[in-house]
Amino acid sequence: MLWDYEQPVAIRFGNGRVREIKDVAADMGLTEGGLLVTSDHFVHDGTAARLVAESDGALTEVFADFSPNPDVTEVDAAAAIIRAKHLKFVVAMGGGSAMDLAKAAASIALTDDSIADYHGTGKPMPLGHLPLIAVPTTAGTGSEVTCVSVLTNRALGKKAPIVSDGFFPSVAIIDPELTYSVPPHVTASCGMDVLSQAIEGYWSKGHQPICDACAIHAAPLVFKYLPIAVADPTNAEARQKMCEASVIAGLAFTLPKTTSSHACSFPLTNIHGIPHGEACGLTLDWFARVNADAQHGRVQEFAQAIGFADVDAMADAIHDLKVKVGLRTGLKDLQLTDAQIDDLVRISRHPNLYNNPVEITDDMLRDMYEHLAATE
Amino acid sequence: MLWDYEQPVAIRFGNGRVREIKDVAADMGLTEGGLLVTSDHFVHDGTAARLVAESDGALTEVFADFSPNPDVTEVDAAAAIIRAKHLKFVVAMGGGSAMDLAKAAASIALTDDSIADYHGTGKPMPLGHLPLIAVPTTAGTGSEVTCVSVLTNRALGKKAPIVSDGFFPSVAIIDPELTYSVPPHVTASCGMDVLSQAIEGYWSKGHQPICDACAIHAAPLVFKYLPIAVADPTNAEARQKMCEASVIAGLAFTLPKTTSSHACSFPLTNIHGIPHGEACGLTLDWFARVNADAQHGRVQEFAQAIGFADVDAMADAIHDLKVKVGLRTGLKDLQLTDAQIDDLVRISRHPNLYNNPVEITDDMLRDMYEHLAATE
Repeated sequence: MLWDYEQPVAIRFGNGRVREIKDVAADMGLTEGGLLVTSDHFVHDGTAARLVAESDGALTEVFADFSPNPDVTEVDAAAAIIRAKHLKFVVAMGGGSAMDLAKAAASIALTDDSIADYHGTGKPMPLGHLPLIAVPTTAGTGSEVTCVSVLTNRALGKKAPIVSDGFFPSVAIIDPELTYSVPPHVTASCGMDVLSQAIEGYWSKGHQPICDACAIHAAPLVFKYLPIAVADPTNAEARQKMCEASVIAGLAFTLPKTTSSHACSFPLTNIHGIPHGEACGLTLDWFARVNADAQHGRVQEFAQAIGFADVDAMADAIHDLKVKVGLRTGLKDLQLTDAQIDDLVRISRHPNLYNNPVEITDDMLRDMYEHLAATE
Repeated sequence: MLWDYEQPVAIRFGNGRVREIKDVAADMGLTEGGLLVTSDHFVHDGTAARLVAESDGALTEVFADFSPNPDVTEVDAAAAIIRAKHLKFVVAMGGGSAMDLAKAAASIALTDDSIADYHGTGKPMPLGHLPLIAVPTTAGTGSEVTCVSVLTNRALGKKAPIVSDGFFPSVAIIDPELTYSVPPHVTASCGMDVLSQAIEGYWSKGHQPICDACAIHAAPLVFKYLPIAVADPTNAEARQKMCEASVIAGLAFTLPKTTSSHACSFPLTNIHGIPHGEACGLTLDWFARVNADAQHGRVQEFAQAIGFADVDAMADAIHDLKVKVGLRTGLKDLQLTDAQIDDLVRISRHPNLYNNPVEITDDMLRDMYEHLAATE
């Protein structure tokens, strides 16, 4: 078996560590010229201003003018500020959107190009980039340890990832206290994304042993701690363990890539507005049963390693987890038409589907979506 | 809980991948000026010449003039060649010695200093370094993913590690086929080092979750595959799994550091000539029983996660493994005197001993060494 591993992101994990932004920047020789990319939410609640004040002059600008699905024009706007003010590094604090935008802006700013030139065009990103410090505020995307930026070009009706080694943050600061204010339904959906990343990273055709070890570590934390984090948002242990699960699931899937549940999540989110993690979870138990005996028993070994009798028991537990944290188990309320089911089948044929260890046919997808359409 | 993680070494793993040295160098923009640091053994058996020939001009010099415990003068000699020939990168192929020497030489060559100035003096190494590609030929040290170089200064009678972020290889190429010629007793000793690194990395006071996951992955591979690799040196699966265990155990201990068994191994090796891994294994089951209920049950959880009923069963299995692979379980043949036991107790008080989760007193060490002295 041949495998590669690369994980250039240094991690600092623990409550209160968001206050180390200044020190982390100083360790890289950066004491001024920092751009804080963060969402409106953290501007309005004063967190952005507090971080700038605490940075002792290291952070000099704030950029929050972007949408939940960042547009290429918003990346260009952030890059223009970096160029105009000769900024030297970027801190991204937020969910996936802030990190998606900051990764792209920190790279494209070193060119005179628009990020649109590299978005879904196959043109490889130049590797130059400003140092990036990623500070996730949800236990969900794993984006702080990946080199992927998902962007939208609304003018062209296009949403696509850009992958570049230059997008790896230099440092990820994971401060579980930042997640305390995440509302229960978002916590639940993000947590289901973590579970999907771990399980799909493990059974992906691109699986490899270090990522296996990370998947086996992360998955059981979600089963144990997600219901607690949803029911009791300031429970310190549950928030910490979900943040731990999130970053380690990020390590688990970055190299092997995700598979079938992620492939099916895209139309469920883009057409029907189901949040990303909830959409992944909707099909995760179904694909677990499909993949149960794939890879010469590896998936059964995974289920056993994380404490279940077999994959069936794990799939049952995924279903029960969705019920417990208030996530969808079906699509009956959408009253899907046959044409809508056809669309779901068609658009689920995303590249990630081909990472699944069992070949997924259109008939299998139709069976699954018809079952979901009939399920509460 | 606060924890940090850093793993800047990219890994390429698989049979035959030693032939990728040229490609790995080219990916870093290096097509000439490479120094191959390797042991006499690989010069004599023609491997060094073959790698140079296969490198299409990327490797231009070979350095093999160093001892199993590399001396600071040997590092300086390699650095002098790098400076004189304006070499641009270093490939270290071998066991721990080749990597120890190459790490230090690739850094000190960028200065006009002697490595002796930084050896056991507390003077921090400058961070500049030539790119280093590490190619381990034993499943044992984990040195390909660490930033430690253990050197000797024979003139001053000093053996000590130097730790520097500049010592991390850029890339580790792990080719299990290179280990086929390792003789059984060396395989056994190196494999016991792997097990010690995994278990000690897990229970070290510096433990953290990513390294925990790596330790849980690596340890059971040793129990399963080491006896096969010792009995059948060209068994491809066993050699591959032991190489996988070795690099992942390297990840498991690099940050948390090793503990009591490594501390005690140093006098056993330096005074009594017991090979490093065999010396670590000699006390590993004893310390497992000492640490069994430490850290609120974490060590018991480890034993269960890797398939044992409890720590006692794991300790029994460590003992049985030593018997099976022909390693020492006692020191009776050395006919140790009380004075020699006193020396072992005294010199075991190495800094690593203080990473052990249970405080180890001199009385505990004396009990252990007296027990070993009376055991076949």
